[in-house]
Amino acid sequence: MKSGDSTTIDVPEGSGVSKAKTHVVVAPGQDKSRMKKGVAIIDFVLRLGAIIAALAAAATMGTSDQSLPFFTQFFQFEASYDDLPTFEFFLIAMSIVSGYLVLSLPFSIVAIVRPHAAGPRIFLLIMDTVALTLTTSAAAAAAAIVYLAHNGNSSSNWLAICNQFGDFCQSVSGAVVAAFVTAVVFVFLILLSALALRRH
Amino acid sequence: MKSGDSTTIDVPEGSGVSKAKTHVVVAPGQDKSRMKKGVAIIDFVLRLGAIIAALAAAATMGTSDQSLPFFTQFFQFEASYDDLPTFEFFLIAMSIVSGYLVLSLPFSIVAIVRPHAAGPRIFLLIMDTVALTLTTSAAAAAAAIVYLAHNGNSSSNWLAICNQFGDFCQSVSGAVVAAFVTAVVFVFLILLSALALRRH
Repeated sequence: MKSGDSTTIDVPEGSGVSKAKTHVVVAPGQDKSRMKKGVAIIDFVLRLGAIIAALAAAATMGTSDQSLPFFTQFFQFEASYDDLPTFEFFLIAMSIVSGYLVLSLPFSIVAIVRPHAAGPRIFLLIMDTVALTLTTSAAAAAAAIVYLAHNGNSSSNWLAICNQFGDFCQSVSGAVVAAFVTAVVFVFLILLSALALRRH
Repeated sequence: MKSGDSTTIDVPEGSGVSKAKTHVVVAPGQDKSRMKKGVAIIDFVLRLGAIIAALAAAATMGTSDQSLPFFTQFFQFEASYDDLPTFEFFLIAMSIVSGYLVLSLPFSIVAIVRPHAAGPRIFLLIMDTVALTLTTSAAAAAAAIVYLAHNGNSSSNWLAICNQFGDFCQSVSGAVVAAFVTAVVFVFLILLSALALRRH
């Protein structure tokens, strides 16, 4: 794979020399290399955006607790993410995804520096697919519970709790939206990696 | 892309001729073509398995209703998938995924016949990623509700309903498992497509 690396020749583009009658013969491989480098840079930027979204989802879920301003002698009414196992799973999954995204940045940088190396790309593609599955499952499971908390369900006698815990429900809904944004970014990352792998 | 198609020459491997002193010069492109054709055939077989799993998930969910053997004058106790919006979403999503999988079979066959054509592969990769997201979200959302139906939640006063509707819960759990199997098959399909796209 490393035998495919082409030695790049710096051609000053901004200078007026190339606009003069100098005929610069560009090898077709160099054009493809520049395209691949552009894809790698987009990959890096998308990854930064995904980190922000995943961290926002985890942080919003982790800090979402609400105590009601009244309490009885034995009991204070309080809602927190750890009352519901699905929200705990959401927090754990989004923390893992955030950690993976931070650890994947060096591989993305390697892909920028060496656009022809297939190893980091394939590694990122496999891990991105797994992370996409984790993110989507956390987001969808939390969304199902949030829907139930908002609307309740009359058939199974599950009452809506968002009437009492409005702030809690709002922050949890925000976390779910952030997680879905992360999932969409992952879909684009996978497609970018596949397109970058396409031809060498 | 079609210019990359190599004309294949059938070399009888099993016959003793090749083990004799006949020197057969195999072009390196032909070996790669055979590898690509093998990947395409695995893709087709995996797709058949995914169709079975997705159809099983949709059918199990769609036929999961249970009536309790006692009823009052005004009301019969009955549980069905359309009592819970999440299960309706599950049924719709798995039906869409089953339909997509059936429609994707011709493209998979094209990939077997023409191992070097990148068009069908990229199309399948994009659609598979979308279908993976749909499958995972349906499975995870239904799993969250099934967990709630089995265990209930004391903090929000949601009682378990599986004590009364045991058969309903069992068939719904089976549907969720089938959907997760479909998701795992999709992950392998995406990785196969990416590896097949890797080098031409």
